[in-house]
Amino acid sequence: MENNRPTLYLIPVELSTTSPADVLPAANFEVASRLKYFIVENVRSARRFLRRCDRTIDIDSLTFFTLNEHTRREEIADMLRPMEEGNDMGVISEAGCPAIADPGADVVALAQRRGYNVSPLVGPSSILLALMASGFNGQSFAFNGYLPIAPAERTAKLKELYRRAVHDDQSQIFIETPYRNNRLIADIVSALPHDALLCVASDITGPNQSIRTLPLSRWASADFDFNKTPTIFLIYHP
Amino acid sequence: MENNRPTLYLIPVELSTTSPADVLPAANFEVASRLKYFIVENVRSARRFLRRCDRTIDIDSLTFFTLNEHTRREEIADMLRPMEEGNDMGVISEAGCPAIADPGADVVALAQRRGYNVSPLVGPSSILLALMASGFNGQSFAFNGYLPIAPAERTAKLKELYRRAVHDDQSQIFIETPYRNNRLIADIVSALPHDALLCVASDITGPNQSIRTLPLSRWASADFDFNKTPTIFLIYHP
Repeated sequence: MENNRPTLYLIPVELSTTSPADVLPAANFEVASRLKYFIVENVRSARRFLRRCDRTIDIDSLTFFTLNEHTRREEIADMLRPMEEGNDMGVISEAGCPAIADPGADVVALAQRRGYNVSPLVGPSSILLALMASGFNGQSFAFNGYLPIAPAERTAKLKELYRRAVHDDQSQIFIETPYRNNRLIADIVSALPHDALLCVASDITGPNQSIRTLPLSRWASADFDFNKTPTIFLIYHP
Repeated sequence: MENNRPTLYLIPVELSTTSPADVLPAANFEVASRLKYFIVENVRSARRFLRRCDRTIDIDSLTFFTLNEHTRREEIADMLRPMEEGNDMGVISEAGCPAIADPGADVVALAQRRGYNVSPLVGPSSILLALMASGFNGQSFAFNGYLPIAPAERTAKLKELYRRAVHDDQSQIFIETPYRNNRLIADIVSALPHDALLCVASDITGPNQSIRTLPLSRWASADFDFNKTPTIFLIYHP
């Protein structure tokens, strides 16, 4: 690291029910077990994660600040107080990589404005793993978060993403609330040409991992059920 | 995995001079050391990587197929022949994650068309790590590969990406040939408003890692040298 300022570590968490060693480098466990101050999406699950990293960890000696969608901007400044006093801190989200499709970007932005070091640790990102396994263009891609729910807006957004996939040769990635996954596949099949490719990547890194790329003509008649399973959707044109 | 078809494993490699255990999960070493057939960007560096994964590996018992920008499409079909015979295979690129800003997507696409399992292993992606540490929007982002080199086209592309950053609230990510990194920063400073934010993420996971987000007004007078160091660039509007 280039200076002796404190460092904000971004600490990824497993995506599914796997052993930590399946998806996290050994070095992460060392970093996580020497930090004393954490900014976390959920205190209970962060404590459980830290115990998986280090069974001998003294959880009661640690300080946790909660960062989620209800956190106000002025509270974030307070959370970084331990860094003002020279301490390193860690950010832990519920699953996957902090600040990617998850809370954390605001606290990272503030750490950057204050000139602290920010060190991202390696871990599973469902977006990146899905893209790797899709066979789609990995030289140009976009993650778009959630689609609109209202039918007309949703169809318009799907057509816009498909236009970008074709016109800009850019793989388009998005997510859905898990109980609406099956419905989203039906909506994509209705909205887009039948030779468009759809990759559905479900329970990535988990025991029921399924990552399947098929043309919409085949999804239209395929037998699937992704209800309530975390799933990533990608569209591209061959 | 959902069936007993053969699996194509996508095996990430370190980005910089680090110990494999710093950036790769232990499970990857087990997968890499039990496979016999590999599709690789460079045979010499793939062999060295496999030795780092497992010092006792019998390299001479392994079969390597070379996949790079010179590989013709019809050669790719031949490379998957071991899978037709029921063998699992691995894809290894020069650095980072196969099929992301690297060769590999074509062979994955063919494996998907043939109905094989594709299993992406966790590893370092400079794109994703840079985005995590930038403080920029992680709910919507695009990776755009290389910018055009000709000055007028390059300026036009930068303005288009900045427009998308503002209009679509989408973080924009791109790369440059390392010996032109310093020049690119100067070009961005000339092309975009001085309150636009630029994150420069250099030697990610390496001994000289530097990930710094500043407004262009500060990059204009900053003291930096990223010449010949692998670097990722991100722009966003605050």
